[in-house]
Amino acid sequence: MDKNQLFKFISEQKTAFVALVDEQGYPVIRAMLAPRKIDGNAVYFSTNTSSNKIKHFTGNNKACVYFYNRGRFKYQGVSITGEMEICTDQPTKDMIWKFGDKLFYKQGVTDPDYCVLKFTAKKAEYYCDFKIQTFEL
Amino acid sequence: MDKNQLFKFISEQKTAFVALVDEQGYPVIRAMLAPRKIDGNAVYFSTNTSSNKIKHFTGNNKACVYFYNRGRFKYQGVSITGEMEICTDQPTKDMIWKFGDKLFYKQGVTDPDYCVLKFTAKKAEYYCDFKIQTFEL
Repeated sequence: MDKNQLFKFISEQKTAFVALVDEQGYPVIRAMLAPRKIDGNAVYFSTNTSSNKIKHFTGNNKACVYFYNRGRFKYQGVSITGEMEICTDQPTKDMIWKFGDKLFYKQGVTDPDYCVLKFTAKKAEYYCDFKIQTFEL
Repeated sequence: MDKNQLFKFISEQKTAFVALVDEQGYPVIRAMLAPRKIDGNAVYFSTNTSSNKIKHFTGNNKACVYFYNRGRFKYQGVSITGEMEICTDQPTKDMIWKFGDKLFYKQGVTDPDYCVLKFTAKKAEYYCDFKIQTFEL
């Protein structure tokens, strides 16, 4: 897989798993809906400003996002480490907003409980058939 | 969910996601096959001694294991934090060994590349329908 195929692979998955490091130094995994946008090494997610993830990322922005596909004959997994930035500026919120989001953020695109997480990928590992391929991004 | 239902839920999932913290402080997610055994708060996995996970856990034993089930109508996720211990003693290796493992560990149950990861759960969060339930374990 090359870098383009890597990002194509992750754009095809419906769920992302995100890991952060909490205040006691424990890694914590959460599931998130698929990224809203991928732009070069930047991967954008929408989330609630009030969620625990935001509190943790404010203290420690190191993160991992993980995507996988279990096919009939093979398992493919991609584990990407990097930094997570919390974006509450309106231009970024506008850019990421999708029709239907009012279901989650009742006050609409300016809802203070709606924010964007921007993940900047640094290094990725692609796992398939017992082999690991590493990418510097 | 109570604690018994929580462990019953995780015993029904085929895949576990494990997070560790690497030497640079980044969380890293890996997939693993379902636990081999659950005994109270202890969750056992089999893995390769030569894997990167072992190197990382030797340096920092803080871990998270994550299980989920995406049903037709609801998503359930369980995120458990705790400590990971690397077990290379033969009694533990014998206890966890399963028929068919020779496919992965060619030298059999005494294969030096076969070891057991014992995860001791400390705290769990159960996510379902936008609500989180916390368990001290």
